Amino acid sequence: MTRPVHILNGPNLNLLGTREPEIYGADTLADIEARCAARAAELGVDLTFAQTNSEGGLVDLIQAAHAAEAAIIVNAGAYTHTSVALHDALKSRPGATVIELHLSNPHAREPFRHRSYIAPVATGVIAGFGARGYLMALDAVAS
Amino acid sequence: MTRPVHILNGPNLNLLGTREPEIYGADTLADIEARCAARAAELGVDLTFAQTNSEGGLVDLIQAAHAAEAAIIVNAGAYTHTSVALHDALKSRPGATVIELHLSNPHAREPFRHRSYIAPVATGVIAGFGARGYLMALDAVAS
Amino acid sequence: MTRPVHILNGPNLNLLGTREPEIYGADTLADIEARCAARAAELGVDLTFAQTNSEGGLVDLIQAAHAAEAAIIVNAGAYTHTSVALHDALKSRPGATVIELHLSNPHAREPFRHRSYIAPVATGVIAGFGARGYLMALDAVAS
Amino acid sequence: MTRPVHILNGPNLNLLGTREPEIYGADTLADIEARCAARAAELGVDLTFAQTNSEGGLVDLIQAAHAAEAAIIVNAGAYTHTSVALHDALKSRPGATVIELHLSNPHAREPFRHRSYIAPVATGVIAGFGARGYLMALDAVAS
Amino acid sequence: MTRPVHILNGPNLNLLGTREPEIYGADTLADIEARCAARAAELGVDLTFAQTNSEGGLVDLIQAAHAAEAAIIVNAGAYTHTSVALHDALKSRPGATVIELHLSNPHAREPFRHRSYIAPVATGVIAGFGARGYLMALDAVAS
Amino acid sequence: MTRPVHILNGPNLNLLGTREPEIYGADTLADIEARCAARAAELGVDLTFAQTNSEGGLVDLIQAAHAAEAAIIVNAGAYTHTSVALHDALKSRPGATVIELHLSNPHAREPFRHRSYIAPVATGVIAGFGARGYLMALDAVAS
Amino acid sequence: MTRPVHILNGPNLNLLGTREPEIYGADTLADIEARCAARAAELGVDLTFAQTNSEGGLVDLIQAAHAAEAAIIVNAGAYTHTSVALHDALKSRPGATVIELHLSNPHAREPFRHRSYIAPVATGVIAGFGARGYLMALDAVAS
Amino acid sequence: MTRPVHILNGPNLNLLGTREPEIYGADTLADIEARCAARAAELGVDLTFAQTNSEGGLVDLIQAAHAAEAAIIVNAGAYTHTSVALHDALKSRPGATVIELHLSNPHAREPFRHRSYIAPVATGVIAGFGARGYLMALDAVAS
Amino acid sequence: MTRPVHILNGPNLNLLGTREPEIYGADTLADIEARCAARAAELGVDLTFAQTNSEGGLVDLIQAAHAAEAAIIVNAGAYTHTSVALHDALKSRPGATVIELHLSNPHAREPFRHRSYIAPVATGVIAGFGARGYLMALDAVAS
Amino acid sequence: MTRPVHILNGPNLNLLGTREPEIYGADTLADIEARCAARAAELGVDLTFAQTNSEGGLVDLIQAAHAAEAAIIVNAGAYTHTSVALHDALKSRPGATVIELHLSNPHAREPFRHRSYIAPVATGVIAGFGARGYLMALDAVAS
Amino acid sequence: MTRPVHILNGPNLNLLGTREPEIYGADTLADIEARCAARAAELGVDLTFAQTNSEGGLVDLIQAAHAAEAAIIVNAGAYTHTSVALHDALKSRPGATVIELHLSNPHAREPFRHRSYIAPVATGVIAGFGARGYLMALDAVAS
Amino acid sequence: MTRPVHILNGPNLNLLGTREPEIYGADTLADIEARCAARAAELGVDLTFAQTNSEGGLVDLIQAAHAAEAAIIVNAGAYTHTSVALHDALKSRPGATVIELHLSNPHAREPFRHRSYIAPVATGVIAGFGARGYLMALDAVAS
Repeated sequence: MTRPVHILNGPNLNLLGTREPEIYGADTLADIEARCAARAAELGVDLTFAQTNSEGGLVDLIQAAHAAEAAIIVNAGAYTHTSVALHDALKSRPGATVIELHLSNPHAREPFRHRSYIAPVATGVIAGFGARGYLMALDAVAS
Repeated sequence: MTRPVHILNGPNLNLLGTREPEIYGADTLADIEARCAARAAELGVDLTFAQTNSEGGLVDLIQAAHAAEAAIIVNAGAYTHTSVALHDALKSRPGATVIELHLSNPHAREPFRHRSYIAPVATGVIAGFGARGYLMALDAVAS
Repeated sequence: MTRPVHILNGPNLNLLGTREPEIYGADTLADIEARCAARAAELGVDLTFAQTNSEGGLVDLIQAAHAAEAAIIVNAGAYTHTSVALHDALKSRPGATVIELHLSNPHAREPFRHRSYIAPVATGVIAGFGARGYLMALDAVAS
Repeated sequence: MTRPVHILNGPNLNLLGTREPEIYGADTLADIEARCAARAAELGVDLTFAQTNSEGGLVDLIQAAHAAEAAIIVNAGAYTHTSVALHDALKSRPGATVIELHLSNPHAREPFRHRSYIAPVATGVIAGFGARGYLMALDAVAS
Repeated sequence: MTRPVHILNGPNLNLLGTREPEIYGADTLADIEARCAARAAELGVDLTFAQTNSEGGLVDLIQAAHAAEAAIIVNAGAYTHTSVALHDALKSRPGATVIELHLSNPHAREPFRHRSYIAPVATGVIAGFGARGYLMALDAVAS
Repeated sequence: MTRPVHILNGPNLNLLGTREPEIYGADTLADIEARCAARAAELGVDLTFAQTNSEGGLVDLIQAAHAAEAAIIVNAGAYTHTSVALHDALKSRPGATVIELHLSNPHAREPFRHRSYIAPVATGVIAGFGARGYLMALDAVAS
Repeated sequence: MTRPVHILNGPNLNLLGTREPEIYGADTLADIEARCAARAAELGVDLTFAQTNSEGGLVDLIQAAHAAEAAIIVNAGAYTHTSVALHDALKSRPGATVIELHLSNPHAREPFRHRSYIAPVATGVIAGFGARGYLMALDAVAS
Repeated sequence: MTRPVHILNGPNLNLLGTREPEIYGADTLADIEARCAARAAELGVDLTFAQTNSEGGLVDLIQAAHAAEAAIIVNAGAYTHTSVALHDALKSRPGATVIELHLSNPHAREPFRHRSYIAPVATGVIAGFGARGYLMALDAVAS
Repeated sequence: MTRPVHILNGPNLNLLGTREPEIYGADTLADIEARCAARAAELGVDLTFAQTNSEGGLVDLIQAAHAAEAAIIVNAGAYTHTSVALHDALKSRPGATVIELHLSNPHAREPFRHRSYIAPVATGVIAGFGARGYLMALDAVAS
Repeated sequence: MTRPVHILNGPNLNLLGTREPEIYGADTLADIEARCAARAAELGVDLTFAQTNSEGGLVDLIQAAHAAEAAIIVNAGAYTHTSVALHDALKSRPGATVIELHLSNPHAREPFRHRSYIAPVATGVIAGFGARGYLMALDAVAS
Repeated sequence: MTRPVHILNGPNLNLLGTREPEIYGADTLADIEARCAARAAELGVDLTFAQTNSEGGLVDLIQAAHAAEAAIIVNAGAYTHTSVALHDALKSRPGATVIELHLSNPHAREPFRHRSYIAPVATGVIAGFGARGYLMALDAVAS
Repeated sequence: MTRPVHILNGPNLNLLGTREPEIYGADTLADIEARCAARAAELGVDLTFAQTNSEGGLVDLIQAAHAAEAAIIVNAGAYTHTSVALHDALKSRPGATVIELHLSNPHAREPFRHRSYIAPVATGVIAGFGARGYLMALDAVAS
């Protein structure tokens, strides 16, 4: 039986590849999803991939992932730095695997990106590896 | 004529009773709603009971409560600590009765739960009494 | 056998009803004590009711309450915000029931009233309900 | 060919004119929209006017404005002070015209309104001119 | 009878147009004054236009404007961020119209430009529109 | 009929004249009281003069002064910087004359003496004039 | 031979009596000067009385007072809170008598008035006694 | 002639041995006093041993110790962290020996226990050695 | 030609596997080095693996890695949070690949571990994956 | 052709040599100017030397120096720590040589002297060398 | 069998007795070591005594002490206030006895000496007793 | 007899001239040493020139300089901002000449470079003059 993994993306990540490609690369979120799906197939992982611009929507997605007893890879974007609600949602299932993912390294950016409400409830963090970080996280979760 | 009271619940409160029962108790939000409805009937109060994971959704619910000239009992969960929008919504009807409710005592938890944007616009606060706080708030509002 | 409950009041609460009645109401502390006594009788609770302007006096009262294995309802007034000694006294009996009570909502007042040394050792908080909060606390403790 | 301009309004601005008219004036948001539409017609500007109580909804509206290559006039209300997501959305199209608009002057209000996540990505700010600020912003964008 | 309006400029604004034109534009302060005078004539406004590098000099100018019962448009430059004396001078005539003006947006610059002692006593703020902001302020004051 | 004035002294002021005379002078508190009594007689003022090392005791003395409808001259010593209870006691009689008195100038001493909980409820402050400040305060109150 | 005393007034104090008389009283600075002159004559003090809106001007006045070996009574107004230059000027003559004077009590006002650069170099402080404080200071200096 | 030593104990230390013995040990304060008395006899020291829950009471005890020209060993408990009055009392006799004593190590506990108003006026600090620290302090003072 | 990669380990990492295995796992640093060497062989990477307890020693190792034009994977342990010298060493070769590695997630630990002087100069961060993070970093560098 | 150099001195520097010679030395500002003039002649530098107690006056002097395309050596005294206006004036001519000069070392004095608004726009800083620092700065500028 | 105790000394302690004897006494570190050795012999303790100016060297010494299962008495000097590496080294052997030792009382010195990274992992603290503190610590460890 | 002067260099300064020459210039540390040696010969100064990447090593070098009764010119690099140990070492010889040297101006760089532990114990500071600052410091020390 395959292990469920939910990759959840937050605000503005739907713009990937179409805006500022010199910073974030030319990959669209759909490209990333496709590559993740391919890797998930290899790894025997049952992948769910979603994106929303809404904080409450991200809470819903996390609750759904917990209900599915899935490992969670979450790139919460800007909500990382402001959302206690995500913190609460993520920790509502003790023992869940949670990986905090960022395309760039928030600690190398503005001070308001240095606080993460997700970090205290994440087992691991991968940041700064661009689109490639998704596959690294998937590999880590699968092993 | 019965007095309208809206009990509004914020993010992750839909998980009540299903997650971490040793902390939050075994009561689901539906159980609490049922008990509130029973008490409301005794008190001759016209009860509306709602939950949302969305900050904007909670703003909508507060506006609706104000439009109904209802007393508000609000357990805003994590949004308590981060949402200026709730603050603005709650104070948009001067003179409204607003009770801030929490299952546990935020001031006994992490520092980021010590700030409340609701407190400055709340007439009363009830915290730390678990599900029972809902009935305490309802009684207080009704009298 | 009745359950012991100690209601302990801190500095300036002896002025209740005689000063600024438009803010704190016309009830004197004696009025409140009388109403609490009546309710305690109904609830089968063995009530002790005391007030002192002294921080050390309040420590003494808390120690006496702990010695009587009583539930404590404490309106520590200004000492709430400055007294580590009260914090230590209250937590010296693990498992004791402690309710923090305020007539008004400190978080809606000056910033120096936003810190509570009692909150981390209180199971529940009731604030902003005026004299009525005493009866709410008594009901909560009795049930 | 007319220039596209999107005027985007955040939480609680749908209440304009119906709540606290002594502070915010008697104009409803519909009144303001009507006046903006009239002025837009004079200026030869293609106006889109929208409001939402949702932070994610506002991110969606900003992305849509960027997709339309529109100038943006944004009165983000309370989200101005708390939303990194808006900041990210606004700056995702480099070179876009962004005007930060407020009915009242946030810097003359509570300290928690002194931080703006929009200011660093706004070319201009207009605050404190009430409903009239909308027309001032429209004029500025059109010229 | 024409309405008096005083446009007051603080330190280093006499350098406009001669230094860093790529940032502040090629307009000199004399150019701006000329355009303001023309607009004032159209609007039937009695314009006084002044500049000083001195904090005390700016206090003098504000007092003179108040004595003339004029509306004040003040671009206080660097003194915006450091001068309590300007704050006091501006608020010494209750009910006066005061518009805070900046060529660029201070909140998009260094942190020491984020504090404004003028904002708490200004009815409106216009920032980031360059020389054009002067005319916007004049129009706003005249209407 | 003579006007009542209460001069209230806080912790360690009973040591005056016996400790560190090079700093605080050779006058004992009894000397000061005698001189104040003489001046009070000249001014036709009904003087009460008291000292206590206890915060609660000082609260009691302030309440007694308020009950006597007396003007209050208070040298609260170290409690000036730590006691919200004094703040509350002093402001419990709106309109009362309260003068904050210090022998030395707290703002020229350690940072922890820069905060005064009495200042916000005092009409006037006299500091740094040594024992002489008592007579200055008495004169000011009498006129 | 009479003792020289310089009373130095800072920004906006020239407005006294003409603005906000309900707060600062109806006395003009000229009225105060006249009363001080009369009292100085009684006390055998050689009085100099001056006002300026300029920080540098106040530095000049303090240097002149030091050159005259005068006692200084300084109501520096807003510069109290922002001027290190005044601090340096005042302390440049060790042993000089310096009295910090305020009409109202800065510590009962906005937080930015709680810092005094003058306090560390002042022997005494008189605040909150309105125009009368000038005479209190003069009496204190003369004795 | 024996040297006087006063061991002074602050709030809640009277509970020692009766509460939380797993943390503070099973020794009561009377046990500690007895052991100190025995050691004092060996060392030829004239011991006074006292406890009070009152801040003012502790000030009184310190003043009495100073009057007796005694060395002081003070375990001020919670007042360590909040009492400027103790600071002032302790330093009122320059050259006095003052040892700050704690059963546990405050710097290993909550942040509000990291500030000590006693440290700046103590010659030595002994913390974390439990009841044994009393004998260590007595030995140190006697030598 | 193989690509040089230096894996550099800071203070206390030599204790791995011998202390607190329930937290850090039973792998010794030698075990990790062996596994990294094996993986490096597969990846065709020329691996250097070093550990030092000295901040200056770590600076030396980083300089040596830069001199070898190697990619750097650095687990700086406690120096991550305190060493500006490491920051300077790492950034002295612009364009170098630098991966910040941590066995556990520092942001889920004490506040003094939340600051990283390495993050601003690291392209990527991997934290919380235990010994496995070394292989993840090696894979990332090799690709 | 000689290179223009302007040495600009701020508040209270006109007192040099006449006040506190044990700290600042017995040299008057005129002595320093004379020595600088002599050195300037040797170096073939066209020296302007000025002092003012006024912040605005210092802005004027800086603007004049920039107009003369001079290198600037500025000892801004107390305005170093409070004047954003100086910061703006100094940076208004990009590429200008600006040396920040202090007689003593501000970082070894009070905390309010640790902030410099000049440092971010100065190419070099010389502090703590007394009157001699003027010649060091002149030498540095000339070479 | 004797109990191993390691006394570890940090930076600049090798200067003891040769520098500022009026503050630190005339005892050299060798003198102290000799006295400790004598006392250790009496107590039946196996003493190791070491000093290093290097942070990493101190980490090495602590690891060696842990390896020897020794009790540790550590006077880390300046590294007390800056070294997370020492914190980590000390706590790497749970249950170890660690005594933090200082010759003077850091909390009576500059603010940057008020933070101790050792305190959270030390069972006891002895400060301010000069060279004598070493023997006190040795006695405490031995008993 | 020649005067001893020690020029001590901290971490990463061994990289000078080989890394980022566009910022730090093309001079290597050996070049600078050579020029300093030449100048020292002219000045009749006995020069010692050293560099280390180790904080403890720098403490050793400072102690050696003090033992030689040398004037110290110290470019401590990154340790300037983090090392209390250097502070202690430098001040262990009262009256020593200590010059703090920086190639660039730390106050014009990141905030974490604004704190200097060396400044409080340095008589003079030279910053921002690049390699030339070494000669300026040498000249200053020699005169």
